Amino acid sequence: MLLAIELSREVLYLTAPNPRVACLIVKDNQLLAAGVTQQAGGPHAEVMALRQAQTRGHNVAGTTIYVTLEPCSHYGRTPPCVDALVQAQPARVVVAMPDPNPLVAGQGFGRLREAGIQVQAPICAEQALEVNPGFVSRMTRNRPWVWLKSAVSIDGQIALANGLSQWITGPQARADGHHWRARSSVVLTGLRTVLADDPQMTVRDVETPRQPIRAVVDTRFEIPETARILNGSPTWIFTCHHDADKAQRLAERQVQTVVMPERDGRVDLAAVLQWMGHNDVNEVHVEGGASLHGALLEAGLADELLVYMAPKILGAGRGMFTIPMRQSLADQDDFRFVEQAALGDDIRLRLRHQGHWQALVHSVSQVPQT
Amino acid sequence: MLLAIELSREVLYLTAPNPRVACLIVKDNQLLAAGVTQQAGGPHAEVMALRQAQTRGHNVAGTTIYVTLEPCSHYGRTPPCVDALVQAQPARVVVAMPDPNPLVAGQGFGRLREAGIQVQAPICAEQALEVNPGFVSRMTRNRPWVWLKSAVSIDGQIALANGLSQWITGPQARADGHHWRARSSVVLTGLRTVLADDPQMTVRDVETPRQPIRAVVDTRFEIPETARILNGSPTWIFTCHHDADKAQRLAERQVQTVVMPERDGRVDLAAVLQWMGHNDVNEVHVEGGASLHGALLEAGLADELLVYMAPKILGAGRGMFTIPMRQSLADQDDFRFVEQAALGDDIRLRLRHQGHWQALVHSVSQVPQT
Repeated sequence: MLLAIELSREVLYLTAPNPRVACLIVKDNQLLAAGVTQQAGGPHAEVMALRQAQTRGHNVAGTTIYVTLEPCSHYGRTPPCVDALVQAQPARVVVAMPDPNPLVAGQGFGRLREAGIQVQAPICAEQALEVNPGFVSRMTRNRPWVWLKSAVSIDGQIALANGLSQWITGPQARADGHHWRARSSVVLTGLRTVLADDPQMTVRDVETPRQPIRAVVDTRFEIPETARILNGSPTWIFTCHHDADKAQRLAERQVQTVVMPERDGRVDLAAVLQWMGHNDVNEVHVEGGASLHGALLEAGLADELLVYMAPKILGAGRGMFTIPMRQSLADQDDFRFVEQAALGDDIRLRLRHQGHWQALVHSVSQVPQT
Repeated sequence: MLLAIELSREVLYLTAPNPRVACLIVKDNQLLAAGVTQQAGGPHAEVMALRQAQTRGHNVAGTTIYVTLEPCSHYGRTPPCVDALVQAQPARVVVAMPDPNPLVAGQGFGRLREAGIQVQAPICAEQALEVNPGFVSRMTRNRPWVWLKSAVSIDGQIALANGLSQWITGPQARADGHHWRARSSVVLTGLRTVLADDPQMTVRDVETPRQPIRAVVDTRFEIPETARILNGSPTWIFTCHHDADKAQRLAERQVQTVVMPERDGRVDLAAVLQWMGHNDVNEVHVEGGASLHGALLEAGLADELLVYMAPKILGAGRGMFTIPMRQSLADQDDFRFVEQAALGDDIRLRLRHQGHWQALVHSVSQVPQT
């Protein structure tokens, strides 16, 4: 199963809004065939693996099939995978985690069992969840899984006092940052970052078959129409300010303006994420400044922190998070370190919100009764 | 040799001001005996290993002896180890690094070669240096090896804006901090930390046969005589202010007051470290606040950073280093990450000043010609 989960990472950049899934067909400890989910609308992992088995002339009857997610039981853009599996008649299907999609939710397992196929699940659910936190989040919380990406000095500064921030970290850290952009559905930033750095926010340093949607939180709709983030693939602007003319001009350039409620003087970020959840967004890579990151943190909407740290010392510069002053060390956000990695001269720290993560783990740790 | 270097770590807390050294006696790939340097005044590693070989009834003639530092050739508190080795007549002596002590500096090797013993050195010098940076620093730079210990939040704050800092990190990180105190010759702090936290700065969370000397940078000699750091084992106060009465009262309590030149409105820190170098201090563990750490950094006197990071976010609190405002990201201090480790909920980051470290490496990478 861990091999299947590893294989499913091959399509991290590809399948959104569908989950990344891999399927292995095994008989007598021999791998007969493997498959991974293709681009949305294309075949799922199970069908890919069954096709490969067929091409190779293997009979799937009596085999064990490993899948990293419960096979779908409904007609989406493709026919249900359980039908294909039932037809192939493996002896056993081992599944990493149930599909939290209410359209599936245990029905996939039920259909297999009815067909006399032995089902074993969940197996390595938490490891499988690592590959698809966004999909599970959208299905169970109606909002995407959100990480905040920062590049900081040892002393936690994202820029000098004069605003200079390019480049705190080196090329390997920047390329790694593009990997995280590439796996996301949306790259989100704030107006201040657009004004300060005029970033493109596209994926360039890693190869990808798909560019995420770029998005800007721009409460007063002040974004200059010359901003580079408005060029190329679709961009979303979340604002509280109506300006039909500007919106119309931008719409002609694939830029969608979404008017949102205001909260605490800025776009209501919970509403933005809920809107994204309804619009098939699984994972959001936030790459803004202290203001946007602090606001997401304070609103309890940050699920992970992705921190690239350079071996530099900046002294009094610009901090990572603009948040209200804390009075006690106990006022904490329940983050946990999950990984430290070296990237050239820099390091990458990943932290996860323990409560948010445990809720997702819980949702995939039990097989619903059907 | 790597085994010997590992063994030498057993006496990290013990041997100061002597270096930590281990010695292995090997014949036909069998370990006959091992020894490590004892408390200052006690036998060195070579003598301990030779004694063990004798006790076990092994003849050392014709063996290979591994030592992590060039055997001493001078009479210090103990007779020269080369004499004991020459008498034992091993076939070969393999040494990790030459002794930078000008009283030895290649003469140990010379004496062994004269006695017809084959000498191989240096072997794994940089790894051996990791165990004794302070000793090599004192011998080659006339000042100790200095690390700055901080406990910080993810966003680089050592305290809340209200000054609250106990405890940012958890018990495992604190115990690890005591390990670093225990290996040091001196634990150095600043007056502000004494006034704010009234710390003891002793080693309590790990077992140690020796307490380091505590020291306080106190430019105006303002330390309250009730401060806990003045109790127990010896303490040094570095000040620019003469107060014979106060100094006399403190002297009766094993507290030595050292009057130092002033520089930039505070005790001249370079002079403090030079004084320490002359007073047999190998390693200094600095555990102060942003002011002392910033000043050491700015003076180019910080060799390592030992950063314990908690998964907390403090927002606008107190930063790690008070340093002049930087204008460019190129104004950098040449630190490199050398290690990341998880300690309970926290992590430990270690950074080393590349230039300072390379100078030490250079000094032990060549065998002086005698």
